[in-house]
Amino acid sequence: MARRESTPESPGSRALIVDLVRSSGPISRVELTQATGLTQPAVSVIVRKLLDDGVIVEKGLAPSTGGKPRRLLDINSRAGIGIGIQLGFDTMTFVATDTNGGVVARQGFWGAQTAPPIEVVQRIGHAYRQFLELAGVTVTDVTGVAVVVPGPLDHDQGGIVEAPTLPAWTGFPLRQHLEEMLATPVLVDNDASAAALGEFWSRGISRYSTFGAIYLGTGIGAGVVTDGSLYRGASSNATEIGHISVDSAGAECACGNYGCLELVASPGAILRAAATRRDELGGLSLSFEQSLVQFDYDTLALAAIAGHGVAEELITQGARAVARATLTFCNLFDLDEIVLTGPAMANAGSIYARETRAALERSFARRSHAVSVDLSANPRDAAAIGGAAMTLQGSLAPGHGPALAFTTVSR
Amino acid sequence: MARRESTPESPGSRALIVDLVRSSGPISRVELTQATGLTQPAVSVIVRKLLDDGVIVEKGLAPSTGGKPRRLLDINSRAGIGIGIQLGFDTMTFVATDTNGGVVARQGFWGAQTAPPIEVVQRIGHAYRQFLELAGVTVTDVTGVAVVVPGPLDHDQGGIVEAPTLPAWTGFPLRQHLEEMLATPVLVDNDASAAALGEFWSRGISRYSTFGAIYLGTGIGAGVVTDGSLYRGASSNATEIGHISVDSAGAECACGNYGCLELVASPGAILRAAATRRDELGGLSLSFEQSLVQFDYDTLALAAIAGHGVAEELITQGARAVARATLTFCNLFDLDEIVLTGPAMANAGSIYARETRAALERSFARRSHAVSVDLSANPRDAAAIGGAAMTLQGSLAPGHGPALAFTTVSR
Repeated sequence: MARRESTPESPGSRALIVDLVRSSGPISRVELTQATGLTQPAVSVIVRKLLDDGVIVEKGLAPSTGGKPRRLLDINSRAGIGIGIQLGFDTMTFVATDTNGGVVARQGFWGAQTAPPIEVVQRIGHAYRQFLELAGVTVTDVTGVAVVVPGPLDHDQGGIVEAPTLPAWTGFPLRQHLEEMLATPVLVDNDASAAALGEFWSRGISRYSTFGAIYLGTGIGAGVVTDGSLYRGASSNATEIGHISVDSAGAECACGNYGCLELVASPGAILRAAATRRDELGGLSLSFEQSLVQFDYDTLALAAIAGHGVAEELITQGARAVARATLTFCNLFDLDEIVLTGPAMANAGSIYARETRAALERSFARRSHAVSVDLSANPRDAAAIGGAAMTLQGSLAPGHGPALAFTTVSR
Repeated sequence: MARRESTPESPGSRALIVDLVRSSGPISRVELTQATGLTQPAVSVIVRKLLDDGVIVEKGLAPSTGGKPRRLLDINSRAGIGIGIQLGFDTMTFVATDTNGGVVARQGFWGAQTAPPIEVVQRIGHAYRQFLELAGVTVTDVTGVAVVVPGPLDHDQGGIVEAPTLPAWTGFPLRQHLEEMLATPVLVDNDASAAALGEFWSRGISRYSTFGAIYLGTGIGAGVVTDGSLYRGASSNATEIGHISVDSAGAECACGNYGCLELVASPGAILRAAATRRDELGGLSLSFEQSLVQFDYDTLALAAIAGHGVAEELITQGARAVARATLTFCNLFDLDEIVLTGPAMANAGSIYARETRAALERSFARRSHAVSVDLSANPRDAAAIGGAAMTLQGSLAPGHGPALAFTTVSR
């Protein structure tokens, strides 16, 4: 994408410098000057302000090249703590991350199940206080709280439009209730979008990359980060690769389209295929119950990795369908870096990586550039970590934060 | 997408104001203040500068609401002339547009055919001088020249990577030779990308729309404009919807993928299908020759519109495949406005619009927002007009111009 120009006075320049230190730190002022095209005095002014604000710190000296030694700058990992909450049917996960996206605390709680949303909000309030206490984090350290949920969102209302696993939550003004309960601004975002931003932030991926994440949870989602910002589209419903039609003669999906990827390649779909071959999977402890899809899928994935022929065949079939959709996704957005993440990548990620790399050998732009495919370091918590990263990006580099109502968080 | 903040001093603010005047003019200073979030004095400073530079003009008064009458601002359509050159195998089209994207002159020339590229560059030089003379445009009025070509490009080199119809041009440094020949900076871009930016610019589409164009020429391309800029991706090879695989068991495409949309729905593919039903198309004057695909397709499209059953069936079949790919495209980018353009939309555009609208009734975000589908006002010249718009955007609103080497044009 076009690199936009910024002047030293604009918030864009501050965000740019924070983001370059994040992705390339430790880095010297001279390198920042070269990378940004800003003047040396302008870089000095911004760096001084960021040091005063405690956003960045000086950290050692660059190897001498003969002249005056250059002091290196890095993100102050202690500048603040982001809280990410992944709200699901079965479980609810809290993570606290430092400003590098490193996890400093993690805690699992019971999920929403079928409880009324307002009751779950009260439980989140209770869990939040308990979590901060356990993690030794004081409220004043928290830069923001983000709740990540599956499915399409109404970003204006801060609520879930439609999540198959959380039907009672449709239309519930989640953000508003949580802000009252926690007495702090709250972001609500999609799990796949959050995971994409989290991987971008914590892996130190360059803002000049065109970066995509594939998120395999209950469903199949994705996100794109370009120019340092999440690609959002008209209503923040972009990059839903689970609803790419892979078979125009296929069954009708809940989304309205036919033959969607999720119908053939989500963990639930793979287990439906597995159920038809029960006899061949006798040695595995599979329940084939709707409510235990995640556990069954983990079991099947472990068996596939261990060399169980039928399990491997089933997972590979799903991985090939995801890989083909990833090729379309990669071609349309012209990506150069992809990370595979989400809970369902935890055990069988290497099969998905193999199939994705094979598919991308046919990428449209392969003569111009390669596309790297990597596995997440923390696929199960990626969405929660991403939520925390969103609050940090919004707070440290406001020019590139999420397009949501709250932009500054009181400290 | 996130609306980025700008300060009055940044080129971004100037670009923002020019773009708002373009899409919403005539517009008052007060409305600009409200729309941008900039302060009233900041807007006044920028507007004064733009008036001095002749980029915008004052044009009448807004209807009085009781207070001081508000003077309205509009783009100065005479601020400069952009030249777009569409270079094809059969034909080469020159257009000159004013700063509103209105066509002020148009001229067709012989295409590149099989002549050596360097010879064609000389012909372009000759045609350029002839065209300016015929159009009554002096060299000093020209804000820039853009050449639009089919196929993937090497944007660093300003050359064609691979165009099936122009094989001799692969690796030829087109931009460099043209800049020497015309003694002016030259942009080289993809026809579909140019057409997308051109439709965005000349239709007055808002920068807050997420806008996509489908371009049906020899192949099938697309472009996305969001936040006022073309979405480019890692190597400016994004949004190639012609290479969405619509049949994973399909034939291998020249791009490396299997069952690409172009293999079943390009004008050439539709004519291959037509050739198998020659007997039923006896009444139509079709040559079925490779070199006359465009003429044959126009004939078939006219017959389809006139109610010829088999012709309509063939075009509809192609249009349905394009519509399904457009649904994927629209879902991944979460578009809210789509324009159908390109030479092959000239006669049968209404069939494509009908099928596209039907497919988009299943769009993923349909509960959040509608997606409008419109036909181009000038489908045959859309790419050339878009090239001209690119030079104007780069010159008038440099913060949002194309990410290419030249940014300012001497006047």
